Amino acid sequence: MTEEALTPTEGPGSTGAPTTAPGAGTLLRLLRDGRPRTRSELASVTGLARSTVTQRVDALLASGLIGPAGEAASTGGRPPTTFSFRPGARVVLAADLGATHARMALTDMSGTVLAEERADLDIALGPEPVLDWVVDRGRGLLGDARRTTDELLGLGIGLPGPVQHSTGRAVNPPIMPGWDDFDVPGYVHDRIDVPVMVDNDVNIMAIGEHHTAWPSASHLMFVKVATGIGCGIISEGRVYRGAQGAAGDMGHIHVPSGDDRPCRCGNTGCLEAVASGAALAASLTAEGVPADGARDVVELARSGSVPALRALRQAGRDIGEVLAASVNMFNPSVIVIGGALAQAGDHLLAGVREVIYQRSLPLATEHLSIVSSVAGESAGVVGAAVMVIEHCLSPGHADALVSGA
Amino acid sequence: MTEEALTPTEGPGSTGAPTTAPGAGTLLRLLRDGRPRTRSELASVTGLARSTVTQRVDALLASGLIGPAGEAASTGGRPPTTFSFRPGARVVLAADLGATHARMALTDMSGTVLAEERADLDIALGPEPVLDWVVDRGRGLLGDARRTTDELLGLGIGLPGPVQHSTGRAVNPPIMPGWDDFDVPGYVHDRIDVPVMVDNDVNIMAIGEHHTAWPSASHLMFVKVATGIGCGIISEGRVYRGAQGAAGDMGHIHVPSGDDRPCRCGNTGCLEAVASGAALAASLTAEGVPADGARDVVELARSGSVPALRALRQAGRDIGEVLAASVNMFNPSVIVIGGALAQAGDHLLAGVREVIYQRSLPLATEHLSIVSSVAGESAGVVGAAVMVIEHCLSPGHADALVSGA
Repeated sequence: MTEEALTPTEGPGSTGAPTTAPGAGTLLRLLRDGRPRTRSELASVTGLARSTVTQRVDALLASGLIGPAGEAASTGGRPPTTFSFRPGARVVLAADLGATHARMALTDMSGTVLAEERADLDIALGPEPVLDWVVDRGRGLLGDARRTTDELLGLGIGLPGPVQHSTGRAVNPPIMPGWDDFDVPGYVHDRIDVPVMVDNDVNIMAIGEHHTAWPSASHLMFVKVATGIGCGIISEGRVYRGAQGAAGDMGHIHVPSGDDRPCRCGNTGCLEAVASGAALAASLTAEGVPADGARDVVELARSGSVPALRALRQAGRDIGEVLAASVNMFNPSVIVIGGALAQAGDHLLAGVREVIYQRSLPLATEHLSIVSSVAGESAGVVGAAVMVIEHCLSPGHADALVSGA
Repeated sequence: MTEEALTPTEGPGSTGAPTTAPGAGTLLRLLRDGRPRTRSELASVTGLARSTVTQRVDALLASGLIGPAGEAASTGGRPPTTFSFRPGARVVLAADLGATHARMALTDMSGTVLAEERADLDIALGPEPVLDWVVDRGRGLLGDARRTTDELLGLGIGLPGPVQHSTGRAVNPPIMPGWDDFDVPGYVHDRIDVPVMVDNDVNIMAIGEHHTAWPSASHLMFVKVATGIGCGIISEGRVYRGAQGAAGDMGHIHVPSGDDRPCRCGNTGCLEAVASGAALAASLTAEGVPADGARDVVELARSGSVPALRALRQAGRDIGEVLAASVNMFNPSVIVIGGALAQAGDHLLAGVREVIYQRSLPLATEHLSIVSSVAGESAGVVGAAVMVIEHCLSPGHADALVSGA
């Protein structure tokens, strides 16, 4: 994740409050739950002086981020006004860029998709044409919705390769020629002057799935099974990145299946070499059932091809073998199986469940849900939007949205 | 972790500060780094009113938790007094209970061991005799050091089995007859009236190792290889527990070694069934090299037994195979190999390193340290003490230590 413009800009308050007294962002965080509150309630919960709260509320009202929400019950005298968060006051642009397809959405500040479009777009065209498309279609979605860039909170992008968290740049992405170390946030920010945040596709899919279907799950693993295999991990509600941001790289874990096929990474027997869409297509083709990629495998399975169904089931078992180890080691509450290959019905999922329940400890699986993606093809754009929203509305950064707060 | 007596007890301040204004604990957190600070510096950093800081500092001085630390440079007029944390103002008792041995220590609030003792103690005696020993020897260590229970911050205990985080009770511990669901913190707290916290042995060893040797490592995995095999995980500096507190149970992960020996858990080919001290002793005995447990295996290796060295090396490879998957998935910065079997020289560690470097992705291993334990046999008591210290000195709880704050 990265941003260009969002440095906390809070200056000394004019009420004589200490310089570190919570700004408008702290009130906004409280109000984001949707419940209307009075100025007194806000003062009581935050411990801020009543005068400070009044100033912060005025600033938030002026920014449009909150609005009056009726009157509270009177305790004698004039009933006090309540205020609540207005998720539609700003919008977010989100792009989910795949190897050969792209999806772009406009959302409000609750992550609800207001408009969405999909296009064939080859990531291998390189960063400038692809990001020009993002900027152009972003402006298009804004214009169609009669919104302006002034109302734009930020822009989130998911890339189909490793992304360095601190800079938003792709790092040696295998299927993205020309993108290595390209300054994605800088390029986009030069064209649309809002915070731009970038992460890899599985991380934003994990965020989107968590937001859509499992908002209260503390530990969720989202496994994308498509041309390759990757995993986005949510821990305590946030993306788990590990020490170097390399967490979730499950495609190159060794599968104890005895199938030591060479992998593009240089090792043999990697999960991706035996259970990805590309691997299944190659195996089926070699068996005399021609398939060109994950979508062909899905089509074959849907048409009842027994070799395809068998291959999917075995791929599920291989993925389950890797996940079973992670279940014992990291004890997630939800495992979501998504990506193109997961759309072939429940064969893949059944194989995953079979092995996890066989290999993991009862204590770790007792409350474990192993499910298909609910967010489906929108998981990426929703997650990219939520990544931007969570960042820009965090207390430190939200202050920058509110002049005079 | 659990505590009996530590509810935050901060009442309304007498200075008219808001009820949620930071208490003495917030100042204490700042001062714990050891650097002396003036009242003005504390007011400036916290944003608290000068009068509030003065009140909090007086309370901390009265409690003995901080003391005057000389004068700062004058900016004209009388030079202001500085204050610093006094780690010796309170002490902590820590017990590390193993299957057949126990270790008990007295530490100060920086986790430094002031006195330590070790005894043969069979955990299978049941909770009451074992915990009576903890209470008795705890009082003994306190008395020998001429400290009183009034000076005792808390008492931490590590148990050799699964512990429910929220209650401090053991949950179906395989080698601890009579302990299942026993109220460990309650029993001890009835005898020594201080906060009592309980966790499993590998979690406290991970805390102790992190505190002793890797305080700035964000993601550390501590692998205990002894009669069984377990793992304590530190993420962002805190114990990672997962959704049900079952994280780190690596002993029953399936090893892709083709060795499908039955495991005591009912499955086959578990890491513990092929690479634990018990498993190695059984294999060596079957080969005609009699060994009764992990310590015998270590003795054999030290005396140059080739079968023992070969077995340790292979156990390292099997452990490495499981860890390699965790390295790709969770990207730690440090892996520590500890426990009785790790004391047999570098053979085990060499096997671990061999497979991790072979099987993990370069991005995940580039900055990865794979090392032997530095804290060694004290890792458990240091970790149990640090668990208590971090909890009791956290801002919310520390307020309870300071009357009038």
